[in-house]
Amino acid sequence: MSTITQSPLYKIACPESIAFFGASNNFSAMGSSILNAILGDGYEGRIFPVHPEEKRVMDIEAYPRVGDLPRVPDMAYIVLPTRIVAETLRACGQKGIRRAVIVTAGFSEVGTEGMARQEEIKAIARKYHIRFTGPNCIGVVNAHMKLNATFIPSTCRPGFIGMASQSGSFITQMFDYLGTRFGRGFSTGFSLGNEADIDMVDCIRYLGACPNTRAIALYIESIRRGRAFIEAAREVSRTKPIVAFYVGGSENGKKACLSHTGSLAGPDRLYDGVFKQSGIIRARSVEEMFDFCYALGACPVPKGNRAVIQTHSGGPGAAAADACDRSGIELPALSTVTLEKLGPYVPHTGSVNNPVDLTYTKNPLDFFQAIPRILLEEEGADSMLVYFLASAAMIRRALAGLSVPEEEIDDQVLKIVDEQCASMAALMTSHDKPVLGFSFLTRENQFISGLQDKGVPVLPSPERAARALGALVEYRRLREKLFRSKRNDFVS
Amino acid sequence: MSTITQSPLYKIACPESIAFFGASNNFSAMGSSILNAILGDGYEGRIFPVHPEEKRVMDIEAYPRVGDLPRVPDMAYIVLPTRIVAETLRACGQKGIRRAVIVTAGFSEVGTEGMARQEEIKAIARKYHIRFTGPNCIGVVNAHMKLNATFIPSTCRPGFIGMASQSGSFITQMFDYLGTRFGRGFSTGFSLGNEADIDMVDCIRYLGACPNTRAIALYIESIRRGRAFIEAAREVSRTKPIVAFYVGGSENGKKACLSHTGSLAGPDRLYDGVFKQSGIIRARSVEEMFDFCYALGACPVPKGNRAVIQTHSGGPGAAAADACDRSGIELPALSTVTLEKLGPYVPHTGSVNNPVDLTYTKNPLDFFQAIPRILLEEEGADSMLVYFLASAAMIRRALAGLSVPEEEIDDQVLKIVDEQCASMAALMTSHDKPVLGFSFLTRENQFISGLQDKGVPVLPSPERAARALGALVEYRRLREKLFRSKRNDFVS
Repeated sequence: MSTITQSPLYKIACPESIAFFGASNNFSAMGSSILNAILGDGYEGRIFPVHPEEKRVMDIEAYPRVGDLPRVPDMAYIVLPTRIVAETLRACGQKGIRRAVIVTAGFSEVGTEGMARQEEIKAIARKYHIRFTGPNCIGVVNAHMKLNATFIPSTCRPGFIGMASQSGSFITQMFDYLGTRFGRGFSTGFSLGNEADIDMVDCIRYLGACPNTRAIALYIESIRRGRAFIEAAREVSRTKPIVAFYVGGSENGKKACLSHTGSLAGPDRLYDGVFKQSGIIRARSVEEMFDFCYALGACPVPKGNRAVIQTHSGGPGAAAADACDRSGIELPALSTVTLEKLGPYVPHTGSVNNPVDLTYTKNPLDFFQAIPRILLEEEGADSMLVYFLASAAMIRRALAGLSVPEEEIDDQVLKIVDEQCASMAALMTSHDKPVLGFSFLTRENQFISGLQDKGVPVLPSPERAARALGALVEYRRLREKLFRSKRNDFVS
Repeated sequence: MSTITQSPLYKIACPESIAFFGASNNFSAMGSSILNAILGDGYEGRIFPVHPEEKRVMDIEAYPRVGDLPRVPDMAYIVLPTRIVAETLRACGQKGIRRAVIVTAGFSEVGTEGMARQEEIKAIARKYHIRFTGPNCIGVVNAHMKLNATFIPSTCRPGFIGMASQSGSFITQMFDYLGTRFGRGFSTGFSLGNEADIDMVDCIRYLGACPNTRAIALYIESIRRGRAFIEAAREVSRTKPIVAFYVGGSENGKKACLSHTGSLAGPDRLYDGVFKQSGIIRARSVEEMFDFCYALGACPVPKGNRAVIQTHSGGPGAAAADACDRSGIELPALSTVTLEKLGPYVPHTGSVNNPVDLTYTKNPLDFFQAIPRILLEEEGADSMLVYFLASAAMIRRALAGLSVPEEEIDDQVLKIVDEQCASMAALMTSHDKPVLGFSFLTRENQFISGLQDKGVPVLPSPERAARALGALVEYRRLREKLFRSKRNDFVS
């Protein structure tokens, strides 16, 4: 695929107009919920509700049949009862619509009869050259177009994580998760459902070409086209990291996948091999999948596996050090040059081993400026982990201590927090090394939201930060391997 | 130890009066921060600040020397410069004070000279029969006495997790963590620092006897009295679960621990063996330590390792199933009796395999009442995992659809949410089986805070819930083993 517009997913992810089937003025219907979410998030394209009786649906002009539409929309969104999906798809084809999302369930995931129904819609799609996602999916979200075509009414922030998921929940139910934890959102998310037509492979290619996507998350219950999957992933991984979470490998997982999307999962070790060959980083949980994507999208690729840890609390530092060990991260001793430069900033209770445990800093601002600059200049380290505990309240007290007038304090606190966070983010860019923060605090703390919003990823525990750094290192390794094998392709 | 009052920690955790050294009217000093935290949290005991010059400290009458105090306080809290700690401790001994917390750092953790200083204070303590925690610790918190003697000003909610930690951060920096994630707090937390006198073993015995503590968390960098540790833990584990997080086992972890508290960590496998012998559940991260304690303190002990999963989202259900496999949890097929009872509640898109994936429920309240009741009655299952997605907004829409007057909706929503959460909690109690929830939502969602506050633990991901259930099952196994070996003690 040379450009994104050639992807079968292009007009599904970026439609200028949508024919909508299944919304009515009965707000409790699933279709109404989805249309409600689309309207609520501010989609700016044109929507044509199709409804046999209602003249207007949610205050938009409705049409009794798809044939009556004044033009051919980019795609059809189908949230109808199972038994009328096939005839609707046929009518869409006759109208000239070439893309569809079929949300309706009751197909291959419910046994033999459902399988027959699925074959029927596939045949209709083939006849009319319709490419579609689903059935039994939740829809699509393209936050950069304000298109949230899922039933969860929630503003998904535009972000850099592109997602293809065999569970719709891991898209829609993650809007809030990514937003409240990291201040992040999706670039584009595809719920694939039964993958009767468009599948994971198409999504990998689309997201690989999508300019808003910096890291790709895959939730996998089974891969249907093994060879094509590996080829697509290898190609995309060279320039964009892919993280996969696969649950079908265990006995319990396999059974659950079968009931969920009718998919036949394979042994865990097989999938492990597929991911390795494909240059894909494997995550072991939903949390980890998003942690990895967050770090991979926010940080430069490290040159190696040597990190330095900056902390002012010993326990979190020790926990991070221990977790680094388990994630294949080395913590080298600091060079004499670095030790000399650090000297003036370290109180007598502190330690300049790695972790660098300051215990406290006389000037709290050193923690965001002078100290990380020195540590990033250390030639023996490729990346940095930083524990954050600072609070705006601390700055406030310090300002009060300096007799700053009460009415100026709020503004000054805001300005200081902002500058410190910006300094940290600028250091990551200027030194071209990953800086990964960790903290037990949430975005309610102004430093945490400030750092995250300026581009420094902050994860919620030392272990999760160390594992995410491990994923960055693994991505470098996988990418090098892919480029080596590419060169070999030319040689042989 | 027969009663809690005989513990050397009793008057440290439950002091009626405190002599405070190191607070002044300079608010940026560490000692002032601690006194500020104590006062802020509403401690109701008597405080005697000792300060050579100030007549009043933070508006409390101060005394120039400890000898001048009008009575002998229960303990001394020492946050002074390193060089005057020894003489202060001696003066306390002369006054008749028999308990102390020494927060000051600069002892065994900073090398030879510091070790000599530590020996000196140990000798003084022995001479005057003073028992103390520290030095180089952060203090003590007893939320049930509103005593937060740490430098983080934050109201720690009274909770059931008792903690002993070789890092103060894992106490103070967890007030916010436990509160915002789980709506929980500590019963009592001890920061141990260098453990020059009172150590982890004393804490285990104290927390074992503490009536407010239902689960014990230990953060360990090294165990100093191996044999006593095992004995104390074995005794306490019989009636109260203990969870330990040990970070000294890796090379990086070992080095970090040495700089942090001057402790000599041992090989990971050795500690693994110690924990097993002691009946202690091992956690692999800070998050996991608190997840486990939360679940262990909130749930009954399961009869075995068979669980049923209730969900209305396939992906989170499949992820939970897969994680159960990795945590040694079986998911048995449901009996025909259960299947018959479930029938009317499961729509045609749902699945009655285990996970029970409802996809949706016509009456959302069934999810909190009829369905979990049926699943808890299943004789083949010992516990239940439930995925929560419900939102108050959903109930609000449903009520609006039923034409409930606008002004009554808020009250009714609150009442309904409350009743559903209470129903779930009551089902756990009446069936005496653990019910563990999981959700990607936070306490901002009224159902999540409602469930947590009524006593149903809700963890933030399927994997973490499955691992916590694994910890419950492991506790049952460990406890049985301890009781068996107890019987053998009598036989041999």
